[in-house]
Parts: sequence; C-alpha cells; structure tokens
Amino acid sequence: MRFSLLIVGITLFVVSVSAQSKLKYVNPLIGTSKMGHTFPGATVPFGMVQLSPDTDTLSYAIGGKYNPEIYKYCAGYQYEDPTIVGFSHTHFSGTGHSDLGDILIAPTSGKLQLNPGVAFNPKSGFRSAYSHQNEIAKPNYYSVLLDDHKIKAELTTTTRVGIHKYTFSKQDSSHIILDLISGIYNYEGKNVNTYVRVVDEYHIIGFRQTSGWAKNRTVYFAIEFSRPIKSYGYDDFQSKKVYQGFWRKFNLKDNFPEMSANQLRAFFDFDLDSSKELLLKVSLSSVSMEGAVENMKYETPDWNFDQYRKAGESLWEKELNKFDVQMLNEGDLTNFYTAVYHTCLSPTVYQDHDGQYRGLDFSNWYNKDRSLVNYTTFSLWDTYRALHPLFNLVQRKRNADMVNSMIAHQKQSAEKMLPIWSHHGNENWCMIGYHAVSVISDAYNKELQGIDYNQALDACIQTARTRYFEGIGSYIDLGYVAEDKNGSSVSKTLEYGYDDWCIAQMALGLKRMDIYEEFSKRSENYKHVFDSSSGFMRARMSSGKFIEKFDPLETHQAGYIEGNAWNYSLYVPHQVDSMIELMGGKKRFASHLDSLFTMQLADKYFEHTEDITREGIMGSYVHGNEPSHHVIYLFDWVGRSDLTQKYIRQVLKTKYLPKIDGLSGNDDCGQMSAWYIFSSLGFYPVCPGSDDYVLGSPLVQSAKINLENGKIIEISTKNQSEKNIYVKAVYLNNVKMKDFILSYQSIKNGAKLVFEMTDKPSKTF
Amino acid sequence: MRFSLLIVGITLFVVSVSAQSKLKYVNPLIGTSKMGHTFPGATVPFGMVQLSPDTDTLSYAIGGKYNPEIYKYCAGYQYEDPTIVGFSHTHFSGTGHSDLGDILIAPTSGKLQLNPGVAFNPKSGFRSAYSHQNEIAKPNYYSVLLDDHKIKAELTTTTRVGIHKYTFSKQDSSHIILDLISGIYNYEGKNVNTYVRVVDEYHIIGFRQTSGWAKNRTVYFAIEFSRPIKSYGYDDFQSKKVYQGFWRKFNLKDNFPEMSANQLRAFFDFDLDSSKELLLKVSLSSVSMEGAVENMKYETPDWNFDQYRKAGESLWEKELNKFDVQMLNEGDLTNFYTAVYHTCLSPTVYQDHDGQYRGLDFSNWYNKDRSLVNYTTFSLWDTYRALHPLFNLVQRKRNADMVNSMIAHQKQSAEKMLPIWSHHGNENWCMIGYHAVSVISDAYNKELQGIDYNQALDACIQTARTRYFEGIGSYIDLGYVAEDKNGSSVSKTLEYGYDDWCIAQMALGLKRMDIYEEFSKRSENYKHVFDSSSGFMRARMSSGKFIEKFDPLETHQAGYIEGNAWNYSLYVPHQVDSMIELMGGKKRFASHLDSLFTMQLADKYFEHTEDITREGIMGSYVHGNEPSHHVIYLFDWVGRSDLTQKYIRQVLKTKYLPKIDGLSGNDDCGQMSAWYIFSSLGFYPVCPGSDDYVLGSPLVQSAKINLENGKIIEISTKNQSEKNIYVKAVYLNNVKMKDFILSYQSIKNGAKLVFEMTDKPSKTF
Repeated sequence: MRFSLLIVGITLFVVSVSAQSKLKYVNPLIGTSKMGHTFPGATVPFGMVQLSPDTDTLSYAIGGKYNPEIYKYCAGYQYEDPTIVGFSHTHFSGTGHSDLGDILIAPTSGKLQLNPGVAFNPKSGFRSAYSHQNEIAKPNYYSVLLDDHKIKAELTTTTRVGIHKYTFSKQDSSHIILDLISGIYNYEGKNVNTYVRVVDEYHIIGFRQTSGWAKNRTVYFAIEFSRPIKSYGYDDFQSKKVYQGFWRKFNLKDNFPEMSANQLRAFFDFDLDSSKELLLKVSLSSVSMEGAVENMKYETPDWNFDQYRKAGESLWEKELNKFDVQMLNEGDLTNFYTAVYHTCLSPTVYQDHDGQYRGLDFSNWYNKDRSLVNYTTFSLWDTYRALHPLFNLVQRKRNADMVNSMIAHQKQSAEKMLPIWSHHGNENWCMIGYHAVSVISDAYNKELQGIDYNQALDACIQTARTRYFEGIGSYIDLGYVAEDKNGSSVSKTLEYGYDDWCIAQMALGLKRMDIYEEFSKRSENYKHVFDSSSGFMRARMSSGKFIEKFDPLETHQAGYIEGNAWNYSLYVPHQVDSMIELMGGKKRFASHLDSLFTMQLADKYFEHTEDITREGIMGSYVHGNEPSHHVIYLFDWVGRSDLTQKYIRQVLKTKYLPKIDGLSGNDDCGQMSAWYIFSSLGFYPVCPGSDDYVLGSPLVQSAKINLENGKIIEISTKNQSEKNIYVKAVYLNNVKMKDFILSYQSIKNGAKLVFEMTDKPSKTF
Repeated sequence: MRFSLLIVGITLFVVSVSAQSKLKYVNPLIGTSKMGHTFPGATVPFGMVQLSPDTDTLSYAIGGKYNPEIYKYCAGYQYEDPTIVGFSHTHFSGTGHSDLGDILIAPTSGKLQLNPGVAFNPKSGFRSAYSHQNEIAKPNYYSVLLDDHKIKAELTTTTRVGIHKYTFSKQDSSHIILDLISGIYNYEGKNVNTYVRVVDEYHIIGFRQTSGWAKNRTVYFAIEFSRPIKSYGYDDFQSKKVYQGFWRKFNLKDNFPEMSANQLRAFFDFDLDSSKELLLKVSLSSVSMEGAVENMKYETPDWNFDQYRKAGESLWEKELNKFDVQMLNEGDLTNFYTAVYHTCLSPTVYQDHDGQYRGLDFSNWYNKDRSLVNYTTFSLWDTYRALHPLFNLVQRKRNADMVNSMIAHQKQSAEKMLPIWSHHGNENWCMIGYHAVSVISDAYNKELQGIDYNQALDACIQTARTRYFEGIGSYIDLGYVAEDKNGSSVSKTLEYGYDDWCIAQMALGLKRMDIYEEFSKRSENYKHVFDSSSGFMRARMSSGKFIEKFDPLETHQAGYIEGNAWNYSLYVPHQVDSMIELMGGKKRFASHLDSLFTMQLADKYFEHTEDITREGIMGSYVHGNEPSHHVIYLFDWVGRSDLTQKYIRQVLKTKYLPKIDGLSGNDDCGQMSAWYIFSSLGFYPVCPGSDDYVLGSPLVQSAKINLENGKIIEISTKNQSEKNIYVKAVYLNNVKMKDFILSYQSIKNGAKLVFEMTDKPSKTF
C-alpha cells in the first residue's frame, strides 16, 4: 500500500522549471567529495579562469615516491578538509591525474605568515579553517568565510579574469599572499621559474612556469588591486641557495619592483578604508604578461563585482536553457542541470581576447578571425564517447572550434599527431587511442561547419600511422598490438580499430577510397585479439600466441588498462553485430552480457579497479570509468531492450546522486555528466562517427533540446514514473519506431519523440 | 750607432695599406691569452651570432664556492689550453664577468661520447686536442683541425646564423653533438630548461633557457644539416631524477622527435658521401624557434659557405675602411685594425630580421621600421668613455640605434631605469653609475638623428632619481653617497656627478631649466667627498665624517671599486679646472699627477688590482682598467702636454702589443680598443657629452677617418717617428691651434689636422 501511494505521489509531482530558475538546480559542490574530482569555485562556461578554493596542495611525491594522498586533490578541493589554503585560477574538472592550481591568492590578516601550514592545523600557517555553513557555491559565484582571518571571500569571473572580493574585519594588518609555489600535483622541481613585477601601487604582472603533467607550460598573469599597495616583498622557499649575480646589491625582498625565484611566495600589505573591502582582478594569458593586462582591460574595465557575477550567471542561464526538462523530482533536476553545468567546464578557452594563444610549438598563434576560439584540455579517451557527441547537438559552434583547435594542435605537434590528452599548449600523453579522430569523424557526420575536413582527415591519417606511438607499428604489421611490443595491447587494438573505422567513414564521405580501404581493413583488427577458447579479447604476443596467464576479471594484467577483459571485450562499437557473432551469437551474448551485471565481484578485483567507488559498479559493470559507457545499450542488439532500459534507469538513479559525494567516479571533464544527459533524455551515441543514437529509457518526464539552428527536439513521455522504466513504444514525429536506432538526420532539424512507458518489460520495440 | 740606424730604418718604413688588404691586419687571436678575454671565432660586425671555439666551460662555482679558474674563460677560449670542447654561438668580447656560450656544437667521430671530458685529457670525452699550427682565425672565418677526431672544422657567419663546415676523415661514425648544458660561467641550476624538436631529417629547432648573469634568458635556435640525420638521441645529465609523466611510455632517447630536459646533450649521427663533408647552419632568435627558422631562411637560403664567408669579409672591409691609416710599422697596423675589429664586436644586434626582439619585460617588441635595429650587450661603465664617442664619429646610425635600444630598455624596465650593464634582454646590474646618460648626452651633443631627445632626457632623469639604486637616496639627501648607506661610495659619488653634468647639459640644450638647475647642482657633488687633509677623494659616513682607515693606494677598501683613491680622485672629467683647484692648483696637481706614473707600486697593492697584468700598469697608473682612461690627458690642463704626449705614446707602444697576449687588460667590449684608436689618432674624448676632444700625441703617420656623411677627417704628421713623440704644433685646416681642445664642431664636416712632431718636449702648445 505504502508503495503504490508513493508511486502515485511521484507521478503527480512533475517539476516545472522556468528559464529563470534553472541556476538553482546547479550545485557545484556535487562531486567534490570522494571520486568526482570536481571543483566548487566560480567560472563562466568553458572559462579560461576557473577560480576555486584549494583545500590542500600536497606534493605529488614524498621522498621520491608517489604520494597516494594526492589523488584526491585532482581539482584542489576535498569537501571533508577543514582548511582552505587559498584561491587559485586554473582547475581541471573531474580528471584522474592533474596539474594547474595556478596563481594562488590567499587573503590574510594579523601577523604576516608566508608558509601555508598543514591541513589539520590551520594555525600552522596562512591557511584558514572554514565551515560549510558559511560556504556558498553557485554558477560563477563562490563565497566562504575564512575563520582564522575573519575575512569573507567572494569570487566571480569572466572568461579570462578572476574577480576577488575580500571583506576584512579590520582596516589594518591586511595582506594578500600571492603564492606562486602552490599548485596541484606539485613536486620538487615542477616550478621552473616564476616572476613578479610590481608595475605601480595598483598593478602587478608576472608568470609561473612549470614542468609537470604539461611539460613546458607558462601561465602569465596580471593583477589589479582596488586599493594601493602599502608595501610588499617575498620569500624564496627553495632549499638550495641560488645564484643572484649582481642583483645581490639590492634588498630584493623589500619593496623592490621585481621578484624572480624558483619557489616564490609574495605578500602585499594594504591599509583599508572603512568599507574594509579589498577587491582584486586577476587575469591570465598563455601568451604574455601584456596579454594578461589586455585581457583584463577588455573584460573587466571597472570594479563592479556584482555586474561580472550577473553577466556570468546569464552565460550559465543560456547554457542551461538549451535544455527545458521536466523531471519526476527535484533531485533529478539537480542531477540534470548540474550535469549540464559539468559538461560546460571543459574544454576551456585558451586564447587571449585578441585571438593570440601559445601553441604546442611554444610559438604564439593568432586566430585573426576573432570568431574562432582556441580550446584546451582534451581528455579525449573520456570525452569522445558522449561529451563531444553532446556538443554536436547543443554546442556546435564551440565543438567546431574544438575540432579546429585539435587540427591546429596536430600542425604544431612535433609528432604531427592529433591530441591524445592535451592541456595548456602541451601534450601530456595520458591514456590510449587516438580518439581525436572519433571527434573529428563525428563532427563530419554531424555536418559541423567551418572545418576543412580534407585537412582534418590528413591529420587523422598521419596520427594513425605514427608507428612509434604505443604499438601502432606492430598493429599495422601484425593486425594487432603485440603485448610484447607494447602494453595494454588489447585495449589499444580495440580502440584503434574503432578509431580506424571513424577514419574510414570520413574517407568514404570525402571519396578518398584508398584511405577508406586501408582503414576499413584496420577497423576489423579487433578480430585478431579475440580468443575463441575463452570467449574474450585477449593479449597476444608477436609470435601470434595468446598470453597464457589470463583472468577475465582482473584489470591489472597484461593487455588492459582501466578495465578488465570482461568489460573491454565488449568494445567494438562500430561493428556490434559482428562482435556478437564472434562471441557466440545473440542468445549467448545476451546472457553473457547480463551476467556482467549480475555477477558478484570478489573484493580482490574491486580493489584493483581504478577511479571508482564501490557504488560505481554493478556486478562487474563499472560505470565509474569509461570503457563500459556504451555497454548497457548493447542489449538492444540482441533483443533485450528491456535490460538496456532497466540498467540505464538503475544507473541514472544510483550512480548519480544529488549530493556532495554523488558522483560514483571521476566526472572526467564532463564525460560522466554527458552520459547522464543523453541517457536521461532516452538515447545515447554508442558509436560516434555514425549517424546513430541508440534508444534507452528516458528519465525525464519531458524535455526540449533547443538547438542552435532554432529547431527543437521535443521529448515527451507517457506514463513516465519511477516504476514505469520500460519502453512500450517510441514515436518519432508521430510515427512508431521499428528499431532501436534514432538517426541524427531525423532529429537535426527538430523532432517530436514520444516514449510510451510501462512497468512491463518488453524484449524489443 | 745601431740605435740611430734603427731609427732611420723605422722612419723610412711607412706602411701603406690598400683597401683590399686591411683584413690581414686583423688578428682575432690577439687578447685570447691572459687578460684580454677576447674570442677568436667568426662573426660579422656587431653580429648576433658570434661563433667561436670554447676551450673549456668550467663551473662558476665548485662546492658552492666561486671557482677562480673561471675568470679566464669569460670569452670561452684560452690560447694556452690544449683542447677544444666545441663551437658555441654567443660570446662576449673582453668582459670581466660572463655568461652566454650558447648552443655548443661538437663534431666527433668514432665511438659516441656524450661527456666533454676534462681539459688536459682529451681522450676523457668528446673534446679534442688541437694545434695552433692548424688554427686560422680571421674576420668571419675560423678553422681548426680537431686532432682526436681528424675533423677539419671551418666556421663562418651571417648576422644571425653560424655556418659550420666539417670535413671528416671517414664516411661513417660521424656525429654532431649538440650540447645544451655547455655555457660560459655555468653552474648547477643555471640551465632552467632546454628543448629540442626534430622537425624532419634535415632540421631541428629548440631553445636553451638560463638563469645566470642574465636572470631570465631564452635563446631559441634552428639548425639545418646539409645531409639527412641517420639517427639521434640524447642523455639528461641532471643528477636528480625528474618527473616524466606519461612521456615515460616512449623511448624518448631513441629517435623520438622531442627532447626536453634540464641538462641535455643530444647527438645526431650521419652517413657521409665521398666528400666527407657535413655542413650545419645554426640560427638564433630571442623571440621564438620560428623566429630562428625565419632568420635562417632570410640570411642563409643555400649552402654556399664561401659566399657567406666573403659577404662577411666585405662587411668587415667596410668597417676597416672607415680608417685609412699609415703607420710606422706592421705591428702598429695590426694593433690599429685589430682594435677597430674589437670595437665592432659589441654591442650586438638583438633582433630578428623581421624586426622582432624579446624585451626586458619578456614581451616581444617589434621595430616595424626595419631600418631600426635593437642592440644588446651594454657594458656601459666601460664603453661610455671612448667606444660610444668613437661610434659618434664612425657608427652614427648604429649608435643612434643603440641609444634607442637603451630608451626602449628603460621603457621595458621594472625599475624604469636605463641600462647599467645589460645583455640579452636582461639587466645584470654589474658595476656602478648610470652611464647610459653619458652616451645619450654625447649622442645629443654630437647631433645623432632619429632619437626623441626629450623622451631620452626623461629616461635619464627617472634613472638618476631612483632612490633605492646604489645610494642615490643618500646622494640626493646628503650630496654624496654615504659609505654606511652604500659601498664604493666615492666611486659612485664621482661618477654620478659626471653623469648628472651630462643630464644638465642636455637639459640646457633642450631648454628645460629646472632640470638643468637640479642636475648642475648635483654635478658638483664631487666636492663633498674631497678630503683636503689627505688631498684625495675619500669615503664619508652619513654623519659627514670621513672614514678613518684610509690608504690611497689600496683598491680594496671602503669607498672604491676597481680603482684606488689615487686613480679615482682624478675623476671629475666635466670640471677638470675646478678639480685641479680643489687639489691645490695647477703646479701641485702637475707634480701629483706625474708621481702617479713614476711611483713604485708595492706588490701588495698590485695583487689587489683587478683585471690587469703587471704590464698593464705604469707606476700606479692602471691602464688595464677603465677609471684612469682619461687621466693621461689631464696633464694638458696644467701646462704639461709633454707628459700627456709621452705617456700616451708609452701606453700605445707597451700596453697594446700585436701578439696573442698583447692586451694588458680586459678589452671590455671594445673600450680598451677604442682608447687605442682615439689616442693613436691624436685626440681623446675626456668628457663625453661635451663638444671637446683633448689632444695627445698621434701614433699614426697619417690617417683618414671616413665619416658617414662622406666627409673626411685627414690627420697627417710631420717628422713622425718612434722618437719624435712630442707635438710641436697642431694645425687645424691650416690654422695653428692655440689650445689642446679640438671641438667636434670643427671636425664633423671633415677637417685637415696636421701634427708637427719633434723629439723635444714642449710644455704647452
């Protein structure tokens, strides 16, 4: 009884969201605890500046050994931490390795301290205790009370400028610490050089040059204070004494207008007026200090904090308004719009307002056409799956810019390769595959404008033929990556095969048939690592032999990366039918696939599974990491759409929760969130580069996707409820669909999609 | 008998020099032994690339302590050394502190070695023994046989490109070492970052970033090989293991197209053809790797080594032809034209061919007007005395560019100061004074075109009012630098006084009378450090008291730098008469001054005298260092021109010798050589900024100075000989001169100057 009443209650409770109110459904704190690796700070959509509190900035290594504690701090902030060190201007959202955290500002009062101190003892340094009760995190606004210093900190941003508003409790003894040592995933030797110049009593400029995940990176900055600097200085925290040359004739640490050191923390002292307010504008540039100055002049000519905050909120409203969704409850709305928010945090703008940016070749490049924007932070192993396909629906201009940024990257690259995992004008070579080709191929398929696709295809081909890259030589010669030539050989062979299919499709479209032939052949290489004796994709040696030691549930064994044989063996998104055939046909495959979700995973396997919480997995299905993101949709191919629907709804309701620790794995630059958005809308791009979306089970009550061409994709449901998770029928523009494939062509100019929901499972449409 | 015959022989032997043959009188090896600190390698006049062998590149410090051996290697080469490490592309000429030695190339054969080895054991590394018999050093050409590798090395240059021609003895096992660690005045931590990119089998690009005398300096380079690279790699010699991130997935040291490390030596292997020749072009840029590539394309489009060599020789002939001199012997001709050569080695061009250069603010600046050239390497404490005044006669366009480069420096400077000692877009703060104002004032007085003199004067004023710079605050407040406020206070007070006079003169000309008043007053500050009880300029405390401990012959005591009280007390070049009055009148001054030359300097004083050899001094007169360069001419003021003439001729014949160790002190970027040129022509700029040259005793038989305006200053002598060192009369345009002052106005449009020589001293003209 109670149960049915509950259901009635839910079906009646349809949440209607007006355009004005969507902001309130975004909670930037979601994912800041445990594995989400998101940051709570202020930013505009795709902003170059992402200004956020860092609760700790540990060293990546201690005594030469990796420090496992560091992993929590990929975004600089962990909700459980009792102290805030300061506010830095660059952050990744949701990554599983890290960098950035540049130009940390800490307002302090009382006795000057230049050491940050340690996390659980705020009195040990300039860091401060804080309480979540005094913390507000909203799109483009973050505020917190720094208890130790009795300073209210408020942050907002424009694309290239962070605006800080600090309200002190006293007029005197007010300091701003500029910490150029602090950074995320720091270690000894990462800071190559830093420089600060005091231009006048209101302005400073400088740069921080690091060699970390990005091997050669310089962040230039400019800072303007709302009140004159009274006095300033710095300390060099380098353990080794450094050569000073004839600079030693000055008292460099006392009001000398240049500071240059390897481990530099500067301070600036102020006398405040009765408002006790001190505002800062901090602008960044990848090009030069002058570039940072110009960005500030252009974007933030005055001191109107509230105006910048509101302008950023409007930008967020514009992004959120691309989706008008109705959900069954507020929690789902929070999930949905927070997911939209998270998909707009990366890639980020990496270009000065005048069109200049620092390329991968350390040269300054120039988008003379100011409508072109260079982007950075391509976590492609993650984001090619659903984030860029989502952009092809709702961020078409930006995604074209991103594709062009990738093509520019290839031109600038020493290896002449498209980005693998790139950020801040650097290739960091993280993860595997060459999935930029998937993004490019999908852009081609989705008819993005403003891209030279023949040039793009050349870039794809050159990338895919780079023999020294991760076993490609053996892949070309043998038809698979040989494990003795290059590790994670199964994962690589499978992902290369899919990428090659993307290249082939694009070549076909562009009528370059020799390329089509070459890469079509390569796209079938997955067959060469299928071991019919075990029924799994399995690592092979150059000799042709499969490796002997093999446990399909073990992630950390030869052949795989961030996924075990069970999950990875399902990765042939471009030839699902053929894969099913290989694995014993539809019937066998259906039960095999279901067992993935129903098996009991022994703890020893879970302990080896990366990047996720125990809540992130179902059986051995790992939603908290990417290799399986398409897997649930495979039931559609074998006549078990009911299982697709069931598990999709299960993931949507259990792996994404509207609370601080609600993300079951790294958000991975928006990929996890993009999965949520697609799946809650009822379809998913199993094979980017193709025209096809695959139907699942919508979570929305109804939704409008407002396309850039002014057209609308309207999704509505009948009998939608928490219980009615099965799809009885789907109508596209009032015609009943006979298949689980929804084509891009059928929705690109708007469409009406109606899902008839039921609590009765049906194996096919 | 023998003596008089000899004199007859010499007077009859008048050496006539045709335009074509002046090159042979230049011996770049002069000064490469002992204290000259010149380099023997190839360069064009004022070339950005100065490509020269380095015989050793020791560490500046050993175990944290200064290594006194390093001083010999200011130019990278010591003639006595038995081995050559390689050939690097940037060198200072004649400095007393150092830096540069960038992008060292070493051709080797046989087994690959990446360690340079130690100087006296060539087999210990890739360095090679060599013999001076197999060494040729000429303007824009250097050649040597590297004995260990049996490789003939030949070097030539254009302004921004070094061209290497290596002839091996075998076709195989040929290597080019690219040593990015090597540098002059290196020490641990100086190399901040280096990068190499293999663009294709013929081309590499990269950069070397250092923090040394220049605190933040990046040299970008591009290299083209005449034959394809067979294979390549590198080693990182950093003692500390560095973070590699995901780059570790590559075998970075084996044909991977990017190399980035802190202590990097790369190798490139070649198969040669039957010519056994391998040529390299190495271009530099301060702006970017792309800038270096463009410089190479522009200046050296093909492989014609001989053509580049000849083009550079022609540039040298043009410079040498500014002087047509006849001397009494070949040695003097060698001295003269080698001196001219040495005055054209710095300042150097610091700008890409397209007009871009890296400024002091780390921004790229752009001389859109391609006729404007930015220069670097301003050793101003030395060169304001005679080098820039010489430029005002024969390098007027270049000197105007240099002045504009100084004004640009001031604009770009954090301290808003004109250069003190600057190089490669950095202020190194070496030595004292703010003598750029002297150069600017002299340029104004000598009517150089293309300079905004009001802007220039503003830059001078701002510089001279920088209170935190080296005691200027106390100088302004007290009328002298107080020794307890800032060391070397006497030297500073005297030099500031002269510089202030320069500012005042320029202000007067520009009718800025308030400035004229302010700085005229300051220009008399020398009076405040004159101690009438001792008769010397002497250090004072803030209290007004002279310091007690005082020895006028001791260089290393409170108050002075690179000169003792004896020498420094004579430094009031702008008010000589007043100084003489202060020091007891003409008669007393004459005998006081003569005793400087005749006294016997105790060894203990000599040992403390910097930068010179025992041969560099006469009594206590130190010609090998700059503070006394005007001193001999002071006899003119007190009716003892005979002593001016005698000592000038003595210095010209004994302190400059046409042999390898012939320079008695550091050439100091051409200042020592400029003194030689002026003095051997018969006059000297005792007070730059004034219109006056002061007459001495010419060494030339005759000379033509070919001015840029097409006019000629013709100097001729009557009865010139080694013995007839005294001047009986001087005729300017056939009118007998009545004074020892020769004005610039009287010679700027050409003049005929006739010196009647005699062996009879005459106290006045």
